[in-house]
Amino acid sequence: MISFENDYSEGAHPNLLKKLVDTNMTQESGYGLDSFSLKAVEKIKATLGLAAKSSSVRFLQGGTQTNQIIIDSMLQSYEGVIAADTGHINVHEAGAIEFTGHKVLTLLSREGKLHSEDVSRYIDTFHNDSNFEHMVFPGMVYISWPTEYGTLYSKQELIDLRKVCIQNKIPLFIDGARLGYGLMSEKCDLTIEDIAELSDVFYIGGTKIGALCGEAVVFTKNNEPDHFTTVVKQHGALMAKGRLIGIQFLELFTDNLYFEISKHAINMAHKLKQGFQEKNYKLYMDSPTNQQFFILENKKIDELSKKVKFARWEKYDDNHSVVRFVTNWASTRENIEYLLSVI
Amino acid sequence: MISFENDYSEGAHPNLLKKLVDTNMTQESGYGLDSFSLKAVEKIKATLGLAAKSSSVRFLQGGTQTNQIIIDSMLQSYEGVIAADTGHINVHEAGAIEFTGHKVLTLLSREGKLHSEDVSRYIDTFHNDSNFEHMVFPGMVYISWPTEYGTLYSKQELIDLRKVCIQNKIPLFIDGARLGYGLMSEKCDLTIEDIAELSDVFYIGGTKIGALCGEAVVFTKNNEPDHFTTVVKQHGALMAKGRLIGIQFLELFTDNLYFEISKHAINMAHKLKQGFQEKNYKLYMDSPTNQQFFILENKKIDELSKKVKFARWEKYDDNHSVVRFVTNWASTRENIEYLLSVI
Amino acid sequence: MISFENDYSEGAHPNLLKKLVDTNMTQESGYGLDSFSLKAVEKIKATLGLAAKSSSVRFLQGGTQTNQIIIDSMLQSYEGVIAADTGHINVHEAGAIEFTGHKVLTLLSREGKLHSEDVSRYIDTFHNDSNFEHMVFPGMVYISWPTEYGTLYSKQELIDLRKVCIQNKIPLFIDGARLGYGLMSEKCDLTIEDIAELSDVFYIGGTKIGALCGEAVVFTKNNEPDHFTTVVKQHGALMAKGRLIGIQFLELFTDNLYFEISKHAINMAHKLKQGFQEKNYKLYMDSPTNQQFFILENKKIDELSKKVKFARWEKYDDNHSVVRFVTNWASTRENIEYLLSVI
Amino acid sequence: MISFENDYSEGAHPNLLKKLVDTNMTQESGYGLDSFSLKAVEKIKATLGLAAKSSSVRFLQGGTQTNQIIIDSMLQSYEGVIAADTGHINVHEAGAIEFTGHKVLTLLSREGKLHSEDVSRYIDTFHNDSNFEHMVFPGMVYISWPTEYGTLYSKQELIDLRKVCIQNKIPLFIDGARLGYGLMSEKCDLTIEDIAELSDVFYIGGTKIGALCGEAVVFTKNNEPDHFTTVVKQHGALMAKGRLIGIQFLELFTDNLYFEISKHAINMAHKLKQGFQEKNYKLYMDSPTNQQFFILENKKIDELSKKVKFARWEKYDDNHSVVRFVTNWASTRENIEYLLSVI
Repeated sequence: MISFENDYSEGAHPNLLKKLVDTNMTQESGYGLDSFSLKAVEKIKATLGLAAKSSSVRFLQGGTQTNQIIIDSMLQSYEGVIAADTGHINVHEAGAIEFTGHKVLTLLSREGKLHSEDVSRYIDTFHNDSNFEHMVFPGMVYISWPTEYGTLYSKQELIDLRKVCIQNKIPLFIDGARLGYGLMSEKCDLTIEDIAELSDVFYIGGTKIGALCGEAVVFTKNNEPDHFTTVVKQHGALMAKGRLIGIQFLELFTDNLYFEISKHAINMAHKLKQGFQEKNYKLYMDSPTNQQFFILENKKIDELSKKVKFARWEKYDDNHSVVRFVTNWASTRENIEYLLSVI
Repeated sequence: MISFENDYSEGAHPNLLKKLVDTNMTQESGYGLDSFSLKAVEKIKATLGLAAKSSSVRFLQGGTQTNQIIIDSMLQSYEGVIAADTGHINVHEAGAIEFTGHKVLTLLSREGKLHSEDVSRYIDTFHNDSNFEHMVFPGMVYISWPTEYGTLYSKQELIDLRKVCIQNKIPLFIDGARLGYGLMSEKCDLTIEDIAELSDVFYIGGTKIGALCGEAVVFTKNNEPDHFTTVVKQHGALMAKGRLIGIQFLELFTDNLYFEISKHAINMAHKLKQGFQEKNYKLYMDSPTNQQFFILENKKIDELSKKVKFARWEKYDDNHSVVRFVTNWASTRENIEYLLSVI
Repeated sequence: MISFENDYSEGAHPNLLKKLVDTNMTQESGYGLDSFSLKAVEKIKATLGLAAKSSSVRFLQGGTQTNQIIIDSMLQSYEGVIAADTGHINVHEAGAIEFTGHKVLTLLSREGKLHSEDVSRYIDTFHNDSNFEHMVFPGMVYISWPTEYGTLYSKQELIDLRKVCIQNKIPLFIDGARLGYGLMSEKCDLTIEDIAELSDVFYIGGTKIGALCGEAVVFTKNNEPDHFTTVVKQHGALMAKGRLIGIQFLELFTDNLYFEISKHAINMAHKLKQGFQEKNYKLYMDSPTNQQFFILENKKIDELSKKVKFARWEKYDDNHSVVRFVTNWASTRENIEYLLSVI
Repeated sequence: MISFENDYSEGAHPNLLKKLVDTNMTQESGYGLDSFSLKAVEKIKATLGLAAKSSSVRFLQGGTQTNQIIIDSMLQSYEGVIAADTGHINVHEAGAIEFTGHKVLTLLSREGKLHSEDVSRYIDTFHNDSNFEHMVFPGMVYISWPTEYGTLYSKQELIDLRKVCIQNKIPLFIDGARLGYGLMSEKCDLTIEDIAELSDVFYIGGTKIGALCGEAVVFTKNNEPDHFTTVVKQHGALMAKGRLIGIQFLELFTDNLYFEISKHAINMAHKLKQGFQEKNYKLYMDSPTNQQFFILENKKIDELSKKVKFARWEKYDDNHSVVRFVTNWASTRENIEYLLSVI
């Protein structure tokens, strides 16, 4: 059955597989020190406009692992991470952050986003509390961009969040599991260079955008944690054949591939959204990226489930639910058209 | 430069890559529920002669991760794991076991192996200590097969260890990162079915034997920890595209591929060992598997380093060191011959 | 300056100190195996009407430590604890629960209390979520009785909570740091036997009710975690001179002392509340126990701060704040009268 | 039965109890900010000759807790602590160090002591290992003084260890659970000021030397970990009534009490040792402090067990065992004489 359930249903973009095949028998060093990973690091830094010396790029395997390791390695033991109550780390990572000893300090989100004034007020309240030493210190701000609801922070919103972080001397971490899909959205007023400049650490999602696995973590401010290799190993996350991820990112950052396949997914999402709207389906949230949320009658959902795969998100009211349809780098025009013909 | 440094210098066996390419655009469920992973599980169970219902097979990415998750999920919080002082989990995993709160209880090893009488004595001493409640409970026995020195436990030795485990009601865990290389050794008196029968949990190493990444964990006694998927996710180790590993293991367990490529590595190791011995180099340990250890003069080592890559293992005396040469599924006859021509 | 800031400003009830002096030079076993601790355990079980064999009583030092150890030892690694967003473990314990790897799953509270329907709905939603395996399992319900706002769950409310716990096979844990102050309240419709019956584990607070330190943990359903002594030691919480706490609880449970001194605190709180109300100060929450919350003008607060000590709790509006006045076993009639004369 | 089993069989020195009684009803701040704790801190700093600004003193409850918190708060997450294989943290603390994620890196001890050359060689080997990033970094040296066998490092031995620590930029931590008994030994060539100067952090044991509970941690080099109060709270170790420990240490450091009662224990140990030697019992180790180890026939041990309490330490040979007799601040001349009359 054709699936719009998530953005990781297919394998990898064919260029990546071809490169894996072509380089397969070359002998390389392990643990990310292979020549492909090293070149991929340089390409990414060049794309981001980051000086080689003041930044670093490291490859990890998946989103939860990446969130866990970044947060655990950048926080002090007595610190927690501020996140939206809807943030992935708070809801859908099985307590991976708490597993490493850190509390997720949640703030009410609006459209999946944290608001800078809320963050600022939270931190001020903390420091003004006479009992603050009995509480978890806010040590980082985590946001996802795009968010779990497909929405985007504007450049001004990121600037405002960054200002709060600078004032409070804590880092801003941007979870970019779907970074490309945000950057290629019509509603995006940011470049990838802006993301690098406005964050202390972020990652470029590969798993959801064309790779078999892999996320590229960028420490943008000369702030890679000490002995990060050892930290990664200690978390069970150091790959022997680091080339697997290095080769894929090298290819993704060759000839703009990462951006082009992201743009394709956005185009497909646009077509999908338009089709739903033409048939008068109601948007749950107006997402400008590859995840689209609609409010459907439960009866309709049951019916549609027999024809295509998609995700039931949450209850809306007694007769309606929120559903999610997702496009990605591999979505085809034909499949979208089929979907629109059956709704 | 030609390398004999480790067993993860190349990519994957071409059959695996071909299968990845062939299945690439099929849409599949995530997190290990794809059709390939499900088939691979069945194939592995069939190979092991395990009843489908009383065993389970789960895929993880690499060795340290696998050791960490198995040990953490099978131990009680107050228990530690018994291992050889030379065991991988004790020395070369950056404290990944302790990271999850468990002590590695080390016993002196002989040729990289634990002896069952030592294990038995250790556990008895623990239980007879009037202060045992102030000490870490021995909750599991961990061995690697082959060991870090390429040596093999015999069937009798495993039977003896298992007996001690049963008497003390603790599981026996076999780290099989190089399992195939052990099974195909001339000195091996065990089958893979024996490994399954004699252990409570073990894993079939993929990373070092033909795969880009991946280890297949086998819980052999109807003893998969509750909610293992959640536990894996919490450790940051649940792959979105589980198909990557499922497809590779499906291929490895098709037409005996896993065993054949393992046998090839053993043949190449035999040739290499013979060549060194013919030139009167001294074995450090008489390994019957794919890792070969020799004692070389430091001067010789420096000279040889300019021609091929290999690992300096440890100091032997003031003028000599132990070095390690490794073959694997990808080793070529030509490379071995070249090596033997320059030593 | 006279203080109403908290319930741990003084030392211990004189009877306890006297007993410590009288027994001082007796030689006793360590780690809670002294004759006093053993007797105290029996006295507490008798008071609770618990059969000796099906329950156990263990002594720990303070509230945060007790909460941490109970929760960590009774949860599986992949489980979290449900608590009110205002619960002590969520706000004022510096992340001690997360430190041991567990998430606090917060629900909106009303007057500091969890409502059984909210808990039931939360757990149902969890189990109905198609992604529940990627989320933290609800593994326990934690409530404090009295709550952080001095309020009390009624017997019916506890019965309802317990029902939800039984249906979902998870334990109900009652934090009784101020248990005596709850039991002696006029509004209390529960006995200490009820508390034991309706909970799976609870503790009898000593630190805030007459002791120098110490909380008596009661596992009521034959459910003490395996090797609890080792678990306590591993958390750094096993006292060498366990007699210190054993002697104090032995005395507290001799001749009804625990209940009488609790009653005294309630009487003093009643007098205090009445005095404030007679002067038309507004209650923030109508607490029937030893913590009293009022809404005062900020100017009044500054003025009053020069005469007595009390806690500023939270902002109410731009001109008013919530303040807390606390009585305890040691509060004197004279001090209350002085306070009422200066407000 | 008269006991020589350990050094925590009695309550507290009467002066301490008297002070607790005398100050009992004074209202004081919680969490170690009471006036007694603050004064005790000053007294201890004065005794140690430490400048108020460049050092800090903090009170914790017991030895395991203190070791756990110091080690966890001073190490980076990827670091372990070097200790003698016989060290308390390695053997008798139920894995409390590993519970917080850190490995204990053990070296063979001689008479319970680490040798500086062994430490130096271990660290050098670590840094010269080409795989050091896959291993646990040595981040601290832990020693106990006196050791678990009652032996003492000489001043020169401490100077040598400190030199190794400075060269490798890691702290030296001295576990002084029995500090007074070391300082008052005839064989001691160190002052308490030397201990402060030669260590980065150490603690003055109270539990075993006259107090009901309590250890005074001294950070000697302006190196108290950031937000140590929060760290202590997070470990469940912050006492509400910190006065309990503050008052006791204030008294212990008034009129030399700590040293005088320690001296008494040493005198009693000397008498005990002499008595055993006069009867030709063989010393297992020649301890100059309050713990005395003898080699006794098993038959003799069984017989003696009926008359006095003492600890069986370990097997010596098939017919003999090592036993331990301990004196402390409370030991009486009469009890020693009785013991000597029955051996």
